[in-house]
Amino acid sequence: MGKTTLTISSKTYSSWSLRGWLLARFAGLEFEEVLVTPDDPAVRAEILLLSPSILVPCLRHQGVTVWDTLAIAEYLNEISPKAGLLPEDRAARAHCRAICGEMHSGFAAMRAALPMNLKGHFPGLKVWSRAQADIDRITAIWTECLTRYGGPYLFGTRTMADAMYAPVVTRFVTYGVMLDPVPVEYCKQILSMPELQEWTAAAREEPDEISELDVEF
Amino acid sequence: MGKTTLTISSKTYSSWSLRGWLLARFAGLEFEEVLVTPDDPAVRAEILLLSPSILVPCLRHQGVTVWDTLAIAEYLNEISPKAGLLPEDRAARAHCRAICGEMHSGFAAMRAALPMNLKGHFPGLKVWSRAQADIDRITAIWTECLTRYGGPYLFGTRTMADAMYAPVVTRFVTYGVMLDPVPVEYCKQILSMPELQEWTAAAREEPDEISELDVEF
Repeated sequence: MGKTTLTISSKTYSSWSLRGWLLARFAGLEFEEVLVTPDDPAVRAEILLLSPSILVPCLRHQGVTVWDTLAIAEYLNEISPKAGLLPEDRAARAHCRAICGEMHSGFAAMRAALPMNLKGHFPGLKVWSRAQADIDRITAIWTECLTRYGGPYLFGTRTMADAMYAPVVTRFVTYGVMLDPVPVEYCKQILSMPELQEWTAAAREEPDEISELDVEF
Repeated sequence: MGKTTLTISSKTYSSWSLRGWLLARFAGLEFEEVLVTPDDPAVRAEILLLSPSILVPCLRHQGVTVWDTLAIAEYLNEISPKAGLLPEDRAARAHCRAICGEMHSGFAAMRAALPMNLKGHFPGLKVWSRAQADIDRITAIWTECLTRYGGPYLFGTRTMADAMYAPVVTRFVTYGVMLDPVPVEYCKQILSMPELQEWTAAAREEPDEISELDVEF
């Protein structure tokens, strides 16, 4: 069957790699990282397009190859049901999948205007109106979840939704986006996760292979 | 708990509405359609952005509200497990979710260049290179699935993947996209589904509220 591996690319810039990696860690999976360099033109194109891809993240486990972040999340939930990647309550589970789906396919303006960059700090960035509408929708999602399920994570305990939105939290920090108190508390909760701190520390050690000026949308 | 309803918009133009509706029919769900008019500015914006949305499709069932097409698919699979929306084999199930995820979040160039239009017929449309790359990836996905699982649907019997890709089949017909024999056979299979024929007939009866010239990307 071979080793369990997770293929990822840049820890600094690849938000989809971060999501897949967090999901695998949340599931308690033992895995080796396979790093594809952003120097690879295909990987570079995928990072620049800001979209999920078939290259990263990609999980190989017991002869099964799974790509696409949501598919990886569902697979991990099947093999590690006790990890709680989905809420136990059926209505909450549907709600969780709905907001994961919104992150998976949406918020293109926010993703283009505020690309993940764990080495950068650009407070006071002027956010254009469509990106601001995405930010407003995201914080509305968070506030509704935290109010309905009581926090500290979106559905109380940690689920796949927190992995899906974690890169957004880092963007809000990188670009100094002003938020209301409830979303701020959620950001602090995500930033305090040991897994995210481990990933961020590794990002800081990465050679800087994509200069900011190169990033086009 | 109230009636079971599925909110959809234009049957002619809204590919996400078609996906949600097919999924509910595949699951054997009894539901009433709630139509939101494309005259509504929010609905119109969502159709024009070509992205999944929180407005359509939206399923209300036994007190649960589910939006986002993939979340609806997973919900329907939970309440109708015998409908076979996901393959029984774990590896095939992961594969199915992976290609559903690709359709959910990707192929933006193809979606922009070849919008779903069940009333239109524009054979010989010049397809630009990025849209062609999306078309090539889609037909590679289909060919791999049909070869590996034996057809006539992507995973042998009908799954959520066939609902996800059905609007693409209609686009290939609308724009006269040239395909190899294996994808052509798959298109015929999808077009022969009574559910798709019922939807298409209803689309033809719709008043034409969005003129083609209005569609911007």
